[in-house]
Amino acid sequence: MTYVAAIDVGGTTMKGGLVARDGTILHLEHRPTPRAEGPERVIAAISRFAADLTRPWAGSSAPSPGPGDLAEGARPVAVGLAVPGLVSPTHAVFSAAFGWRDVPAAAFADVDLPVALGHDVRSAGEAELAYGGGEAHVLYLPIGTGIAGAVVPSGALYGGAGGWAGQIGHVPVWPDGLACGCGQAGCLAAYASGSAVAARCGVPGAEDVVRLAAQGDARATAVWAEAVEALALALATYTLVLDPAAVVIGGGVSQAGDALVVPLRERLAARLAFRPAPDVRTSRLGPLAGLLGAALLGWTAQG
Amino acid sequence: MTYVAAIDVGGTTMKGGLVARDGTILHLEHRPTPRAEGPERVIAAISRFAADLTRPWAGSSAPSPGPGDLAEGARPVAVGLAVPGLVSPTHAVFSAAFGWRDVPAAAFADVDLPVALGHDVRSAGEAELAYGGGEAHVLYLPIGTGIAGAVVPSGALYGGAGGWAGQIGHVPVWPDGLACGCGQAGCLAAYASGSAVAARCGVPGAEDVVRLAAQGDARATAVWAEAVEALALALATYTLVLDPAAVVIGGGVSQAGDALVVPLRERLAARLAFRPAPDVRTSRLGPLAGLLGAALLGWTAQG
Repeated sequence: MTYVAAIDVGGTTMKGGLVARDGTILHLEHRPTPRAEGPERVIAAISRFAADLTRPWAGSSAPSPGPGDLAEGARPVAVGLAVPGLVSPTHAVFSAAFGWRDVPAAAFADVDLPVALGHDVRSAGEAELAYGGGEAHVLYLPIGTGIAGAVVPSGALYGGAGGWAGQIGHVPVWPDGLACGCGQAGCLAAYASGSAVAARCGVPGAEDVVRLAAQGDARATAVWAEAVEALALALATYTLVLDPAAVVIGGGVSQAGDALVVPLRERLAARLAFRPAPDVRTSRLGPLAGLLGAALLGWTAQG
Repeated sequence: MTYVAAIDVGGTTMKGGLVARDGTILHLEHRPTPRAEGPERVIAAISRFAADLTRPWAGSSAPSPGPGDLAEGARPVAVGLAVPGLVSPTHAVFSAAFGWRDVPAAAFADVDLPVALGHDVRSAGEAELAYGGGEAHVLYLPIGTGIAGAVVPSGALYGGAGGWAGQIGHVPVWPDGLACGCGQAGCLAAYASGSAVAARCGVPGAEDVVRLAAQGDARATAVWAEAVEALALALATYTLVLDPAAVVIGGGVSQAGDALVVPLRERLAARLAFRPAPDVRTSRLGPLAGLLGAALLGWTAQG
């Protein structure tokens, strides 16, 4: 069986896997992203992960959905890496989350195989299109440590003039509002990313904020409501400019489910006075969309 | 010579013309838009204009760039109408500026010729593409009585899932800010449209605001600066999401020239911390883009 190695580098967790052409995940492994230890340590951890995934197969102690399909000594044919921030095919140009500037692809994967580097969210959007039954005219919006969007205007992802489209996490929702790690102020991500809502409530994760809000905690309720309103503002703008049929929310924060989409649908409709709101729903692929997208990158590198 | 009749319905002035396939304007006429007299009177004025333009040619007392090319008794082969708001091929669905809801095309032009109805800004964007030397990846943004945008992601206009893309005039730049005629609050158009800046300074037109600001008038200076900042916010958002190569500003307000684009370029760059701003410039076709776009609509109706 032919397969690729894929790594989806998230803000707190890296997902690595071996993935067949049809999207079957033959092996899946999670490792922590050592973000607190600085830019270089994250790069080194990715590089080690890539080296481990591209070794001849000798079994694994990690839980794996289908290791029986992997023959002893088999190797992937290529590596796909999905990373956040501004990404070119050759470099991680900029990442506020990791403090990267112009990191070459070879720094992430120094292996004797073709390596393809891509944007995590656009890659996840490609996977939603390929495997998730996504229709045309969709904004795919994963909300995790950060927020970006995969713009799919006509059944294919739109990269923009320079390939930098989809930075919806850094649109100014409340101008001159909260400072954002990107250097701007009032960004959507400063209010609605998983890391922002958690930090604003002094808890480890967005899921804790959702739980506390459900229990009536005043601070968590206010922070969550502001996150939903920020998303409603950004999605109102997106809807007015691009008229999508649907907004598909992915990433860790999408696991809030109805606690997210029910108030978000209501606030989005309230922000749109003269036109209907598009359908808002959570992703079908869930948190594995990024890994499947990284695998698609690997196939493009393999040719 | 074969030609179409075209009408571009602006907030204060209607431009009507007879236009050849290559964009040559054979006859051009301006009439006031009787907006203050209510929705029905504007429709009646457009209908009268269409009737006059489609009569057999018998000369005209109006100034005309090339009446010599029109043979006595000649008639256009179709009518193209460009109107603001939400527009379907059969109806003017909604216009905040005119108070229209679901006006059928026949109400605008009750003639024995094919009639095509279209959105004024998208039509002007089509004309910029066809005749203005516009490159791909452009946002065409006419600023007149209102503001809308023609999204041109890849050399062709993008209409969205329902054909309602490009409503950038009603994106919330300062949430819960100034009330807008559309029913929302804080819209770009409430700060930066020609009618908004004029009304906020108590003068007839945006050109008066620009003149007063140049003379040091404090109110005009503040209103103009806020209009520029609102545009910078909306364009920062657009740039982050769609990464255009250029923003081309048209409409009456674009005639402010450097008084608009010089501060706008500076404020847009200031709002973008981690990526360069796209090129911002004024339209080459100027205020005739809408008329030429209406003519292109006419040709599509003619088949």
